Amino acid sequence: MMNKNTFAKTPPMGWNSYDYYDTTVDEAAVRANADYMAQHLKEYGWEYVVVDIQWYAKGAGSERVLFQYIPFSELEMDEYSRLQPDRSRFPSSAGGVGFGPLAAYVHSLGLKFGIHIMRGIPRQAAQAHCPVKGSQLTADRIADPSSICGWNPDMYGVRDIPEGQAYYDSLLELYAFWGVDFIKCDDICNTNLYQQNPYSAAHEVEMLHRAIEKCGRPIVLSLSPGPALIEKAWHYETFANMWRITDDFWDDWKLLKAMFYRCELWQEHVSEGCYPDCDMLPVGRIGGGFGQERASRFTQAEQRTMMTLWCLFGSPLMIGAELTKLDAETYELLTNRDILDMLPPSCRPRQIFRDEEKAAWVAYDSEKKAAYAALFNLKDEAAQLSADGGSLMNALMSVGMSRDVSFTGGKELWTGECTELATEGLPEEIRASLCAHGCRVWRLEIV
Amino acid sequence: MMNKNTFAKTPPMGWNSYDYYDTTVDEAAVRANADYMAQHLKEYGWEYVVVDIQWYAKGAGSERVLFQYIPFSELEMDEYSRLQPDRSRFPSSAGGVGFGPLAAYVHSLGLKFGIHIMRGIPRQAAQAHCPVKGSQLTADRIADPSSICGWNPDMYGVRDIPEGQAYYDSLLELYAFWGVDFIKCDDICNTNLYQQNPYSAAHEVEMLHRAIEKCGRPIVLSLSPGPALIEKAWHYETFANMWRITDDFWDDWKLLKAMFYRCELWQEHVSEGCYPDCDMLPVGRIGGGFGQERASRFTQAEQRTMMTLWCLFGSPLMIGAELTKLDAETYELLTNRDILDMLPPSCRPRQIFRDEEKAAWVAYDSEKKAAYAALFNLKDEAAQLSADGGSLMNALMSVGMSRDVSFTGGKELWTGECTELATEGLPEEIRASLCAHGCRVWRLEIV
Amino acid sequence: MMNKNTFAKTPPMGWNSYDYYDTTVDEAAVRANADYMAQHLKEYGWEYVVVDIQWYAKGAGSERVLFQYIPFSELEMDEYSRLQPDRSRFPSSAGGVGFGPLAAYVHSLGLKFGIHIMRGIPRQAAQAHCPVKGSQLTADRIADPSSICGWNPDMYGVRDIPEGQAYYDSLLELYAFWGVDFIKCDDICNTNLYQQNPYSAAHEVEMLHRAIEKCGRPIVLSLSPGPALIEKAWHYETFANMWRITDDFWDDWKLLKAMFYRCELWQEHVSEGCYPDCDMLPVGRIGGGFGQERASRFTQAEQRTMMTLWCLFGSPLMIGAELTKLDAETYELLTNRDILDMLPPSCRPRQIFRDEEKAAWVAYDSEKKAAYAALFNLKDEAAQLSADGGSLMNALMSVGMSRDVSFTGGKELWTGECTELATEGLPEEIRASLCAHGCRVWRLEIV
Amino acid sequence: MMNKNTFAKTPPMGWNSYDYYDTTVDEAAVRANADYMAQHLKEYGWEYVVVDIQWYAKGAGSERVLFQYIPFSELEMDEYSRLQPDRSRFPSSAGGVGFGPLAAYVHSLGLKFGIHIMRGIPRQAAQAHCPVKGSQLTADRIADPSSICGWNPDMYGVRDIPEGQAYYDSLLELYAFWGVDFIKCDDICNTNLYQQNPYSAAHEVEMLHRAIEKCGRPIVLSLSPGPALIEKAWHYETFANMWRITDDFWDDWKLLKAMFYRCELWQEHVSEGCYPDCDMLPVGRIGGGFGQERASRFTQAEQRTMMTLWCLFGSPLMIGAELTKLDAETYELLTNRDILDMLPPSCRPRQIFRDEEKAAWVAYDSEKKAAYAALFNLKDEAAQLSADGGSLMNALMSVGMSRDVSFTGGKELWTGECTELATEGLPEEIRASLCAHGCRVWRLEIV
Repeated sequence: MMNKNTFAKTPPMGWNSYDYYDTTVDEAAVRANADYMAQHLKEYGWEYVVVDIQWYAKGAGSERVLFQYIPFSELEMDEYSRLQPDRSRFPSSAGGVGFGPLAAYVHSLGLKFGIHIMRGIPRQAAQAHCPVKGSQLTADRIADPSSICGWNPDMYGVRDIPEGQAYYDSLLELYAFWGVDFIKCDDICNTNLYQQNPYSAAHEVEMLHRAIEKCGRPIVLSLSPGPALIEKAWHYETFANMWRITDDFWDDWKLLKAMFYRCELWQEHVSEGCYPDCDMLPVGRIGGGFGQERASRFTQAEQRTMMTLWCLFGSPLMIGAELTKLDAETYELLTNRDILDMLPPSCRPRQIFRDEEKAAWVAYDSEKKAAYAALFNLKDEAAQLSADGGSLMNALMSVGMSRDVSFTGGKELWTGECTELATEGLPEEIRASLCAHGCRVWRLEIV
Repeated sequence: MMNKNTFAKTPPMGWNSYDYYDTTVDEAAVRANADYMAQHLKEYGWEYVVVDIQWYAKGAGSERVLFQYIPFSELEMDEYSRLQPDRSRFPSSAGGVGFGPLAAYVHSLGLKFGIHIMRGIPRQAAQAHCPVKGSQLTADRIADPSSICGWNPDMYGVRDIPEGQAYYDSLLELYAFWGVDFIKCDDICNTNLYQQNPYSAAHEVEMLHRAIEKCGRPIVLSLSPGPALIEKAWHYETFANMWRITDDFWDDWKLLKAMFYRCELWQEHVSEGCYPDCDMLPVGRIGGGFGQERASRFTQAEQRTMMTLWCLFGSPLMIGAELTKLDAETYELLTNRDILDMLPPSCRPRQIFRDEEKAAWVAYDSEKKAAYAALFNLKDEAAQLSADGGSLMNALMSVGMSRDVSFTGGKELWTGECTELATEGLPEEIRASLCAHGCRVWRLEIV
Repeated sequence: MMNKNTFAKTPPMGWNSYDYYDTTVDEAAVRANADYMAQHLKEYGWEYVVVDIQWYAKGAGSERVLFQYIPFSELEMDEYSRLQPDRSRFPSSAGGVGFGPLAAYVHSLGLKFGIHIMRGIPRQAAQAHCPVKGSQLTADRIADPSSICGWNPDMYGVRDIPEGQAYYDSLLELYAFWGVDFIKCDDICNTNLYQQNPYSAAHEVEMLHRAIEKCGRPIVLSLSPGPALIEKAWHYETFANMWRITDDFWDDWKLLKAMFYRCELWQEHVSEGCYPDCDMLPVGRIGGGFGQERASRFTQAEQRTMMTLWCLFGSPLMIGAELTKLDAETYELLTNRDILDMLPPSCRPRQIFRDEEKAAWVAYDSEKKAAYAALFNLKDEAAQLSADGGSLMNALMSVGMSRDVSFTGGKELWTGECTELATEGLPEEIRASLCAHGCRVWRLEIV
Repeated sequence: MMNKNTFAKTPPMGWNSYDYYDTTVDEAAVRANADYMAQHLKEYGWEYVVVDIQWYAKGAGSERVLFQYIPFSELEMDEYSRLQPDRSRFPSSAGGVGFGPLAAYVHSLGLKFGIHIMRGIPRQAAQAHCPVKGSQLTADRIADPSSICGWNPDMYGVRDIPEGQAYYDSLLELYAFWGVDFIKCDDICNTNLYQQNPYSAAHEVEMLHRAIEKCGRPIVLSLSPGPALIEKAWHYETFANMWRITDDFWDDWKLLKAMFYRCELWQEHVSEGCYPDCDMLPVGRIGGGFGQERASRFTQAEQRTMMTLWCLFGSPLMIGAELTKLDAETYELLTNRDILDMLPPSCRPRQIFRDEEKAAWVAYDSEKKAAYAALFNLKDEAAQLSADGGSLMNALMSVGMSRDVSFTGGKELWTGECTELATEGLPEEIRASLCAHGCRVWRLEIV
């Protein structure tokens, strides 16, 4: 028996093509980023290489000035209504072998290979009544004509019928054959079509889960887009490995500030194999896909705040930057072992307080017996922040720390500065002077 | 200059194929019903013969057991992405002449010809990149891939661009050429797709209006489905002739009772060429399209209540029954000249009161100087009802009756019973003993 | 029999103390403004003098720095739970004669007298179990303890029981005795307490209506605050004379621009005795009640746009300015007879078009056979605007103008400029160059 | 430092007066129920005796036929705006000693004493401008006149100002002095006043929490009514001990069935000192307060389903029955040690599946190394139910059970039946034949 929670015992760490390439990603870009990861990032835990949206779209050329997703353009598809990589962009897929060779290359580097898919079955397959492997029904009967994505024109949702399951089974059979390790399924976590039922495709999550179980390969299932619905937490946790708790995240302080609210909401739903997902890290060089390359608009303080929150909370980490253009400062940001140590689900997070101006969190790692505390300045100007020792202790105890612990001091993880307490015990408070949007995070020394 | 309000100076009266034939209507049925209307109903004002949904769908046969609307089935279409009648069901359309011959036949009987359309451009045209007459863009670029109907799989909505207008212009050019007098456009009055914007296709209403103005033929524009949105009243009135104020209406007392609320809501929005539409009259034999023919479930009392409300309010009247099977009682219902006299917009309606148990209305015809009053028993048992003379007078004055009128008596329009007042003046009250769901309606004699 | 629609055959025009005095109005102020009106405004139709909120609150002094409405302060009240004027501010009320002497004074000037009331029964009467005239029950049993105003602490709503009616009857008996001609009842048109039922006090509207009928005096009933609910239009029209279609209106362009939407919504609900109310005119000197007196922030163009819209639409007109400080320009604004001529309900309004940048309206007076057209520039910069002759004609016909009218020219009502058409008939278009937020309005010469 | 999570290390178990006495509870009843608990229930963990609503209301006699809560009746209150027990119903409170003697009596039995309060400050105190201990401001300034309870007329909410905190501090000082161990605060968990902000009194939760910390006595804080808001989970957990996740729960299957949804929603929010609360157990004799005494309408199967769910989930347990009338079967229900063993938070719950017809749960106690599984039949007829071994194992692992456990058999906790597995390991499935609304729950034997 496969237990999907064992597929990702820690939050997946990797690279995703979207922030830089949007719909224009190609094989050379994937290989170059994989190479970089293998040489420079793998040792820090980074391992997934994920090809994002519309790798199956032909002629993704000049028309994209008008449309991010060209409506009703021809998609590369096999005889069973299954999308295939665009051969012009992914030459190794020639001869019907799909992503097999590319996945093999990524595996040869000691890394894992992921792909993005849209929920459903291609519209062109439905219109042309194409066959579906393992099903008597053709695509027009498996497709639900009223279930579409509000922002992408490629697919119809799949009906909740055995033949619909057969379609998903055939997809996963193919992906397992290719060697896919990770699927980011889009238009499924929060469907924007029927606003009165934003989780209307819940049955397709279950179908995907069952298809993965049947395919025999431990494929991580990631659901997009967000915001995920807190009242559906049990469903996400039971059938998927990660789910986006935010709409698309970009390098904009308002979105980063809002993530503090989202993490408050989801903090008790992080566990082994179950990860609320704060979305990609828009750092380094991004936006290059349509010729609008730029450096991340986040300040260094904001980038550290982001990494601290993502790691402390336990979110998956997916780098948005073009890796081959990574600068030293961003590299340092992404390879701070002290920060990354907070990531595993054995390290449980807990908010101490949050309002419009500030936030404070703790985390406690029951395996390493390590305690953490962080202060975040959410104001647009510098500020003095503090959290009192009682609240700190209460929060740590609520995530499993014992009552009879004593503190001796702490190390701030971005600066490396260490502080010792004059007398062992509970500190009266933790405090810091923080620049606008800045943070401090300490690993507390306890005995 | 054409003024659309002159296209229908009184609420359209006619027959619609849907209640009996659903998606299975064919030419023989249309001709037979038109013949009946010409012989038996025309003299009472009935004149429109309307072919309802999916006259363009091929092979509307056995598969309809599964699907009311077969998804992704092939639709009859010309080279310009315009739907054509299914030749197997409408043989006179052979040779590309569309509904021309059938319209001509209906006109030869002294009647008018109407068709149902779905908002938008065929999905199959978009998928196949078909040409659009008068436009450089093909259907895939005119179609909005995220704008679909929630219950019918045939079309995509049209983008708000000049080429979209060109598509609608080409449609109306064709319909005018055929001789169409009436268009019932569906999925446009209340679009069920985006619940947070149920009037998201408002621009397509305006496009249709402009296309009708350009086509040079006075074609009545009817919008479906309802419920229409009261806050959009100005838009409906400015660009259309009638709009459904209810979801599909059937022979169910709950729906009829609810219509009293809807009429209260829309009572001040009835005027020449502008008709809030209470939907078809499900009387006589209906439901035969899929072999489930039945008599209307409405009692005689309910049918009279319905006719009284529709006429007094000023709704369009569209018979749902298969006319060739009309029984004597239904025929009498539909040909009561006294009742039909209340229909024109010169006869303005006004509610006196309404609650869960009862309702009362007046109407005043400023041209004929005729005053009406009606009492409706909304309870499921018999009841005594009354309306006091003061409220009656106030309501009549608010629809234009002069203050210095005197009453001498009245005639009840279903029974023909006449009452005289002992002394001329304002009656103290009107009252009646009514059976469950029953009504009385009087033409008041005034001097 | 009294018909409430005869109480105000044209939209009430007058002065209201709120915009200048807020909760601090006193007898001297009322008399001074009445004197001014009698001498300078009465001849133009201005006639109501309305004392706004909290005339019954004692000690409305220094504490108002903290609270607009002092919670749980003692209110002047008679032995029957009925509020009385604060004697310190309204000295003529001494001896229990209430507003009788002040009303008599206003009447002596040939004007009418109005007061503001809060829906319900005083909280202090409920807490003290005070008697209610004509009722066996004391105030604690008539009050509904869960029905309060969200922004004013004075009252509880009244239960829908006969003893509740007795309370309202006793109020109106008193007001009729005083000589009140106009009641502005607050917290009743859109109750902000139960957001899921913003018309939860509908039964109190009916109670007030019945109490007015019983009192024998034609007292105009005005409902606040807005926005009124369009789906309740029938109820307002049946039981009241005017109802606020907006939340509080102040001298802010955003609010004025929004009124174009509100007038679109309500345009078919203006009739004799039934007036959707655009709220007071914040012109001249306002805001003096708490020592923050200022000139209206509206530009002259905006003030003309406001007066044009209010008059053309048919809204009641209530001046907010302290009249004794009226400047010449504002005086001219308020006494333009050409503009005021559009006010009566015989002159029916109709929007031609409206979007975020512009609006156009017509009106047609069936008694005077006068046609009007107006163009409004809603942009923040100057603009050229036009309306084509066909739309103009269609709109005029929809409010009763005959088809066979010919136009010969027009007079612009703010500038007095006259234009003649080269050839009699329908003008091709009307057009104007308008400054930011400006308007033009023509009386069209027709034959 | 006090940590509120230590006040209730396991879900509180006790008796509450409401289900039997409603607003009529008196001292004799409390003493009799306490006596019974001490003699018959204490040994099973039952310990709280809670006096529910309106113990401060005078003359709760004949008028209650009309009103559950008599509006504006006089409440027993001390000189500092603090409510006191009604002396006629609680004679031991004579002389201003409040609940001190009654609490002492309950303590003398080895039990704990709790009271119900309404959020806020008495309306009568606000109206009379009464003093508040420790505050310069009187009650009229501490009360928020727009913050009321929708169903109870006694109080106003308290403003978020230091003087408001002083009022709550003075309350808790008094309650601590009396010896109160448990406060059930009402109209605070989900305020029904402002439906658009159902957690509008959040600041009063924090004020109560701070007041408890200051008072020095470990008083459990319970929030009502529900349903609590899942998106506010962090706030409840940080500032309270238990919070109602349901509206009032009574002996009605629909409500019990709905609790399965609520438990799914809250299952990850049960931890030491933090208990989502399924509300009282309406068993035995209830409804006697107004002379309508009845036996619980729940069948035995439903009662077992309820107890199983409450215990497995980890809800507080409060008996609604009049204890002195407890029948043998109900007594047995409440004293099943095997079932009660699942209650502590060390035993974490997890849903396996739930739909309209069935549900399955597991729980794992990491301290006792005990695993549980339960099947629930939600249908109205008998049914065969099962859960497969894989899902069972996955669910148990997600609440902390080790992967390398083996199963040897299980004991059904209501019947006592034991089953042994033929071969040690993971059972293929668990299954049972269940009557309508029935359940089975097993303690699984593991090695």
